[in-house]
Amino acid sequence: MAVKLVMVRHGQSTWNAANRFTGWTDVELSDRGVDEARRAGRSLRDAEIEFSHCFTSFQRRAIETLWMILQESDQCWLPVDKDWRINERHYGALQGLDKQQTVEKHGIEQVQRWRRGYAIKPPPLEGGDERHPSHDRRYRGIEGLPSSESLADTLERVLPWWRERLLPVLAAGGTPLIAAHGNSMRALVKHLDGVSDEEITGLNIPTGIPLVYEFDAALQPTKHYYLADDDVVSAAVGEVAAQIK
Amino acid sequence: MAVKLVMVRHGQSTWNAANRFTGWTDVELSDRGVDEARRAGRSLRDAEIEFSHCFTSFQRRAIETLWMILQESDQCWLPVDKDWRINERHYGALQGLDKQQTVEKHGIEQVQRWRRGYAIKPPPLEGGDERHPSHDRRYRGIEGLPSSESLADTLERVLPWWRERLLPVLAAGGTPLIAAHGNSMRALVKHLDGVSDEEITGLNIPTGIPLVYEFDAALQPTKHYYLADDDVVSAAVGEVAAQIK
Repeated sequence: MAVKLVMVRHGQSTWNAANRFTGWTDVELSDRGVDEARRAGRSLRDAEIEFSHCFTSFQRRAIETLWMILQESDQCWLPVDKDWRINERHYGALQGLDKQQTVEKHGIEQVQRWRRGYAIKPPPLEGGDERHPSHDRRYRGIEGLPSSESLADTLERVLPWWRERLLPVLAAGGTPLIAAHGNSMRALVKHLDGVSDEEITGLNIPTGIPLVYEFDAALQPTKHYYLADDDVVSAAVGEVAAQIK
Repeated sequence: MAVKLVMVRHGQSTWNAANRFTGWTDVELSDRGVDEARRAGRSLRDAEIEFSHCFTSFQRRAIETLWMILQESDQCWLPVDKDWRINERHYGALQGLDKQQTVEKHGIEQVQRWRRGYAIKPPPLEGGDERHPSHDRRYRGIEGLPSSESLADTLERVLPWWRERLLPVLAAGGTPLIAAHGNSMRALVKHLDGVSDEEITGLNIPTGIPLVYEFDAALQPTKHYYLADDDVVSAAVGEVAAQIK
């Protein structure tokens, strides 16, 4: 059987629902997000995938998504490794703002650049801002905490995590389950599939639908697919793409 | 500030509610158990205890209790170390039996011995029994899996866990949160407070009420107390003691 991993973007959060830039703001799942997470868990249970290790971020919307998947698939006992390096992209001073209002204020082109430009950072949070991660005890002792990140910056922290934490599990024949975020997953997909800086701009990942990657013996990805019908995936991707107009 | 730890017995499970011997059977929390776990989380939040590490067993009623505490106290990001050595005592062939029916069949004295006799093992599960832990993939690779345990046997696996996993955290000034089970907690309390083999028979631990232990610089326990009013603790302890008549 092929070596594989499964990654899942967390279910809808309360700020996804309110269409606000979230980033490192530690918001909860919405009721719909809870349903999405539970459905993901049931689809993994039905697919009879037995995981060996779980990975998630320091953010509760991803952690709670993982927990619900483990409950539904009856694998609560699995080890879980939480790491800030697969957190969502840090959205800097955009965090908390309404996406549509930001478009009206700064124009669609600027917002599209901030959201999807590969190497473009949104305006940073000031160090004195109480929302800066240096004021949050969960990040204590971590060097180089971001005040704002481009997707390129996100990839730069996701990659060492991938090499240190994930590859050893795959190399040992394990089956990891990753519950993460839209942009930490886009960074990973860019790396795994060699997606260009331009192409990644148009890649959207739906919430709560398990994405399976299979690997060959050299741990090169051979294929990937969502664990849902194509029309369900398309509708979910379309919804992410339509967050700003 | 004193070095401390908090331990919590999982909230009521579906089999606690049905008054069945549970042991290593991996049952879920009942609705009441969920409420108890959430209440424990709010009392820890209100006490403003900032944990550094979490520990739980391989059994979902304890894991789910921990998760709910972390949600209510907004500490979902904390590291969680799961270990079979703080599982509930293995109840052998009694697992699944109704406690009152077992009393009617074997007599109150025999059942009291099985439940509370310090070094008395209940009748073992046969190795061929599908409920034996050797058939469960979560225990794969573990040496010396039990078929039945006395409290003395439970203490024998809890102690190495205490020395390997807990003491280093306390020694480093950390504050551990432990979500465990009636008998793994009784074993720990016996060790920490030097409770005699006879006295431990009468010690009952209520579900879902945080038990705080404080330690001196030599990591000797100096005091312990429940995070609840005395009458609440007494009522909850009385309920545990009254499970068989």
